[in-house]
Amino acid sequence: MYIINIGNELLFGKTINTNAAFIAEKLTSAGIDIHKTIVISDEPNTIYKTISDSFKESDWIITTGGLGPTKDDMTKKVIAQYFKLDFEIDQSTLETVIKMFSDRGLETIEINKKQAEIPAGAIVLPNKNGTAPGLWIEKNGKTLIALQGVPFEMQAILLESVIPLLKQKYKGVCAVVHKDILTSGMGESMIAQKIEVWEKRLPKALSLAYLPSPGQVLLRLTARAKDEKTAKQFIEVQLPALIKLINSSLVSTDGETLTEVVSKLLTKHQKKLAIAESCTGGYISHLITSLPGSSRFFKGSIVSYSNEIKRDILNVRESNLKKHGAVSEFVVTDMAINTMNLFDTDYVVAISGVAGPSGGTKDKPIGLIWVAVATPTRVVCQKFLLGKNGGREVIIKRAAMAALNMLRIELIKNDEK
Amino acid sequence: MYIINIGNELLFGKTINTNAAFIAEKLTSAGIDIHKTIVISDEPNTIYKTISDSFKESDWIITTGGLGPTKDDMTKKVIAQYFKLDFEIDQSTLETVIKMFSDRGLETIEINKKQAEIPAGAIVLPNKNGTAPGLWIEKNGKTLIALQGVPFEMQAILLESVIPLLKQKYKGVCAVVHKDILTSGMGESMIAQKIEVWEKRLPKALSLAYLPSPGQVLLRLTARAKDEKTAKQFIEVQLPALIKLINSSLVSTDGETLTEVVSKLLTKHQKKLAIAESCTGGYISHLITSLPGSSRFFKGSIVSYSNEIKRDILNVRESNLKKHGAVSEFVVTDMAINTMNLFDTDYVVAISGVAGPSGGTKDKPIGLIWVAVATPTRVVCQKFLLGKNGGREVIIKRAAMAALNMLRIELIKNDEK
Repeated sequence: MYIINIGNELLFGKTINTNAAFIAEKLTSAGIDIHKTIVISDEPNTIYKTISDSFKESDWIITTGGLGPTKDDMTKKVIAQYFKLDFEIDQSTLETVIKMFSDRGLETIEINKKQAEIPAGAIVLPNKNGTAPGLWIEKNGKTLIALQGVPFEMQAILLESVIPLLKQKYKGVCAVVHKDILTSGMGESMIAQKIEVWEKRLPKALSLAYLPSPGQVLLRLTARAKDEKTAKQFIEVQLPALIKLINSSLVSTDGETLTEVVSKLLTKHQKKLAIAESCTGGYISHLITSLPGSSRFFKGSIVSYSNEIKRDILNVRESNLKKHGAVSEFVVTDMAINTMNLFDTDYVVAISGVAGPSGGTKDKPIGLIWVAVATPTRVVCQKFLLGKNGGREVIIKRAAMAALNMLRIELIKNDEK
Repeated sequence: MYIINIGNELLFGKTINTNAAFIAEKLTSAGIDIHKTIVISDEPNTIYKTISDSFKESDWIITTGGLGPTKDDMTKKVIAQYFKLDFEIDQSTLETVIKMFSDRGLETIEINKKQAEIPAGAIVLPNKNGTAPGLWIEKNGKTLIALQGVPFEMQAILLESVIPLLKQKYKGVCAVVHKDILTSGMGESMIAQKIEVWEKRLPKALSLAYLPSPGQVLLRLTARAKDEKTAKQFIEVQLPALIKLINSSLVSTDGETLTEVVSKLLTKHQKKLAIAESCTGGYISHLITSLPGSSRFFKGSIVSYSNEIKRDILNVRESNLKKHGAVSEFVVTDMAINTMNLFDTDYVVAISGVAGPSGGTKDKPIGLIWVAVATPTRVVCQKFLLGKNGGREVIIKRAAMAALNMLRIELIKNDEK
């Protein structure tokens, strides 16, 4: 299977090609290998030539981009030209378009009605999130699946229409199974050293990738075999030894994020959480509230972005601010305890640090973070030196992960009691 | 110029190829066209063949990935093999590696010392954010630039070493100039209709791309000409008419984000901001505090994720919560006014809405958002129906953009006074 992502914006940069990754992941999991991903401009001759060349090497192509209503959307026209098909109006698409606009209290404008024009004979892949449908065109043993450039539109069509159809029509060659082992609190090279012997002895059918992101390393174990059952067995044999080596840095082995693991533990024990953020400025709260249903355990947070707010709203002692500074064990402890009282929760995470790019000193360098976690039984504090590499955004993310990982460890301890 | 991104994780999905976009944008701005981007696995034979094939079509290749310390990092070996070069130790890289570890209080482990091995004759591109340096290898009229897979490491090397060297050595063919016109508050097809006549009359040297993201549409006007001055002139001639058509939806024409525009306006007038978030759960605060120096104008925020917190900390009237519900004009107005008193600021943004996926009703559907902006002179309220398309994450982003755009409009009004 080839993926062709169409769009000047992808080749010029700025717009990131998330579509290739999404399609690749979902297809790989369905046992369909991606052999190449190509990014090209939305110039009609280039689209035509790339489709034509790619069909010489592959019977299957998925394209993204160029199905929208605007002048730079050329894909639909080029596909019709390549397959020598006329356009016809698809009634159900037309009705969907008109309904979508009327639901938002708008009239359908002419440009949107054009979305209902499709190449004759194409299978229409309904787009519940937008006006232009996806298209599935088969002719002379070649199949082209044309999807949207807008990620959430493309994603829904891929999952709901394309993959079920592919499962019927595509003959996969081998089964590929991934196992994601998420870790937090240990760097890439530290993990590599810990698991060196284990990794060296991995059989050929298995490969391991290190996928670092701020504050986390995802280890992806991939098995290839003739069928899914055998591939899964390969992984099951190797996994226990790996998990033992990683020990308490292990966050999950089932695709759950650190935030999801924390959320599950809180929900399971019916405990409530509040957060006091300084250097992370709302990012931890955002991670938590991105999860549907987080209101079950999350009562809220305070972003205390000035000493005044720390003192006046969070009751942090003036003496601690003066003597030890806002980035200190004493201040995060005050923040944690007073937030617990203010929000009446079982757990509180409080964080204060130097995110940079300015404000670093010799004693308190950029990347210094203090975290306090208040639990029903105690308050624990920890200092992190996260370095200044990657700049402000990366430091904020690392700090958030360090704080959530501390909360996770405390939750597990209370789980074991 | 070809870009080859190496990494199973990119072909399997999950890891998004941000590197291609970053490199493409920076090179395009420097007048270097990207003709193709290819993603391949990190299997040594595949890397060798793709480099070898690509050099038949292009004299210039940038690769990313496979330079790290772990077993799945194969690029450096393959490059040395392709160019027939031995390895040698680079002393300055070795010293950097040792210093980086000792700064964080760690000892350098054997696996990291290997980072200092480089193909003989390669130009070393120092990596201040990690242990493995980038490599620039020229031989027989072909140039290969091997960069990291970790985005922030790659980005720093590209900007600090690669682009300055390319400017000396690469003969660009044409000048490409982009102009980004950021809009908020109007949909893609609405803009397309407004600017239809203007767009039709654009000369051939200019092209326009619509790049929608939640709550925003970025219009990218691209000009190609023999030199930069001419390309810039093409844009300057067309821009005023476009800006007039877009009117108050225009956020910026200089690459600034909506958050940056708001930040500048607040800083300019020395006004202070606080935020009361419900459905956006900290995301607006995160956007604001991602900007360096935001503590100059941002005092903090409250994420009131339960009615209890709205009532007890934000003094929202119980009667308003009961009679009108948390997602109402009355509650966001209470939130805004009381947050202003609590944080003692000049401006407050308060937001409450239904982010879904559950909790929607006929009267208050998913995507319904109420925003109140309190200014030194008044409180304005606005209702938004953002639809449920895209799900929770997208609705949160759209809601944040709607709120920040309201704040922007109020700040400009006070600017004009």
